[in-house]
Amino acid sequence: MSLWVRTMSSNGSSPFVECQVPISNIEQILLGHGSGGKLTSQLIERIILPAFCNPALEALDDQAVFSLDGARLAFTTDSYVITPIFFPGGDIGELAVNGTINDLAMGGARPLVLSLAFILEEGLPISDLTRIVDSAKRAAERVGIQIVTGDTKVVGRGSADKVFINTSGIGVIPPGVNLSSRHVRPGDAVLLSGPIGDHGVAIMSTRQGLEFEGELMSDTAPLHDLAAAMLAASRDIHAMRDPTRGGLAASVVEIASRQRVGIEIEERSIPIRDTVRGACEILGLDPLLVANEGKLVAFVPERNADVLLDNMRQHPLGRDACRIGKVTAEHPGFVILHTPVGGDRVLDLPFGEALPRIC
Amino acid sequence: MSLWVRTMSSNGSSPFVECQVPISNIEQILLGHGSGGKLTSQLIERIILPAFCNPALEALDDQAVFSLDGARLAFTTDSYVITPIFFPGGDIGELAVNGTINDLAMGGARPLVLSLAFILEEGLPISDLTRIVDSAKRAAERVGIQIVTGDTKVVGRGSADKVFINTSGIGVIPPGVNLSSRHVRPGDAVLLSGPIGDHGVAIMSTRQGLEFEGELMSDTAPLHDLAAAMLAASRDIHAMRDPTRGGLAASVVEIASRQRVGIEIEERSIPIRDTVRGACEILGLDPLLVANEGKLVAFVPERNADVLLDNMRQHPLGRDACRIGKVTAEHPGFVILHTPVGGDRVLDLPFGEALPRIC
Repeated sequence: MSLWVRTMSSNGSSPFVECQVPISNIEQILLGHGSGGKLTSQLIERIILPAFCNPALEALDDQAVFSLDGARLAFTTDSYVITPIFFPGGDIGELAVNGTINDLAMGGARPLVLSLAFILEEGLPISDLTRIVDSAKRAAERVGIQIVTGDTKVVGRGSADKVFINTSGIGVIPPGVNLSSRHVRPGDAVLLSGPIGDHGVAIMSTRQGLEFEGELMSDTAPLHDLAAAMLAASRDIHAMRDPTRGGLAASVVEIASRQRVGIEIEERSIPIRDTVRGACEILGLDPLLVANEGKLVAFVPERNADVLLDNMRQHPLGRDACRIGKVTAEHPGFVILHTPVGGDRVLDLPFGEALPRIC
Repeated sequence: MSLWVRTMSSNGSSPFVECQVPISNIEQILLGHGSGGKLTSQLIERIILPAFCNPALEALDDQAVFSLDGARLAFTTDSYVITPIFFPGGDIGELAVNGTINDLAMGGARPLVLSLAFILEEGLPISDLTRIVDSAKRAAERVGIQIVTGDTKVVGRGSADKVFINTSGIGVIPPGVNLSSRHVRPGDAVLLSGPIGDHGVAIMSTRQGLEFEGELMSDTAPLHDLAAAMLAASRDIHAMRDPTRGGLAASVVEIASRQRVGIEIEERSIPIRDTVRGACEILGLDPLLVANEGKLVAFVPERNADVLLDNMRQHPLGRDACRIGKVTAEHPGFVILHTPVGGDRVLDLPFGEALPRIC
């Protein structure tokens, strides 16, 4: 995705400064280490970052960017461990393709090729695998990307959970496109492409066996075309993020803390479907922390905001796009949420696990 | 690695023509589907291949090769599920880096960048993760490759086995280098870089808690430098393979059956350490089927064979290189093993599982 590269592109500041339990006192991997919250950040900053820090990485954002013979390539990897593997609106195969496409797209890259590596649990019905492969195939075809290399491994019963998929992807960044959270500046408008929380809530209600009135479906979708349309309207976009694990909150909190800017969000401007809002109340979830798989947040200079918003709304995946806030020079490092009742609160991430295995 | 791409580059013929149990009669994933033998081949040919077949892939070999602005890039992916995660001679972190380096190197590519994606089981000691990360770091440093992007996921206890790693890699193929099993021709000499079976036997004896006289250690090593030295001596090399899952047998049987050539192997020429041979007898393993992680097989025109063999022997990883056989126009599709007692036998792969989770 890579949370880890995001963290590694930090300008030395920790995005999550306060922490009740330092990792040095935790001796085992906890589910929370995969949550996208503070524990994940600690794991990456204390163990992964010191090992693999390198100049190429330091300059990077959501995905690695490197130059080759004048071309700029984006490279990203993501493993998918979602449960259940089939869910309303999609399955792990489609998710794995779309998710890696989106990681490339958020860097402004045109997706070029994908890899697809399966870890299968002994006993997985062949019909399930066939269905997943078919779904990944269709997702790749929709984007016009080729899956050019792959791998299959099998482990014994109880050594994995049905199927895990890793997709890695390579994309080409067109000349003049230069998206990076490092470019986010006070004065930027924060745009959101549509309602949040659909994916996470669809997964959680499926797991809990809950049925809600109205449709709850994952929003899994490839964002490359929406991103390309926005960049065609204006190259002057500072950064894009797809708010997956950790939700919208993780995306904005990470940028605020890493880039030492303030971000102000108008809570009432954030579109949330009624069904999702209701389900969140019943499930005890904060929709701001719930994963999305087909939404993007863009940080754009104020002068381009209206043009880009119009442009987003003309795209099927941006129909409900809206402006949700702005970047400020005040309260650097913090996201302030203006609540509908007129109060302000600092938006923070949970320490540990809210939604395990959501992607 | 990718067995699947290897299979997909098939010229329409199945590498494993006879089969007792067609996959259509198997309804669940078996351990054997990950063995590198016939079941793996069936899985790939019946389910994966029909979905993802595309022209770019059809032209490919061990790794995907695609062109970008005149440069030829190699792209490969591999997941590592080996158990135990620490073993004599290495660990899963080093293996994951070396393995993907080797997949690039076997295409003649200079490794450029790697990704590293972890799936961690809840409860994994942080100290184990630290050790693995450190080992991957050192392996990457030895090769001079940068790990530029990554991912971490966590699943609950019992939903994975300690740690799985996916590494994907991108390499650049120098001008004039064109390695592919499609280029293997009758008259080629078959060269092997050193003794076989070390990795698989080290893993199996660790699992079984067996101790043998003499050292049993994995041969995990990066082969990029040996491959580059060979290509510096002569660009006229037809194909290279690293005989991992499925062993030396899988590498030669796949090439024979796919390229419709015959291969003759002198069994007495194949170097096998005494300890490995002894352990194989006790464990009931055929060393030809046992995985290697630091050896290569090269198919080279006879006129270059002696020069290349001398060249390999000057490299630390090719000290014990030897000529083990030749490619023939006779018995196309089959590998004939000339045994030390003067007999001949057709070398074939097992149907199912010999060594589960060996890499």
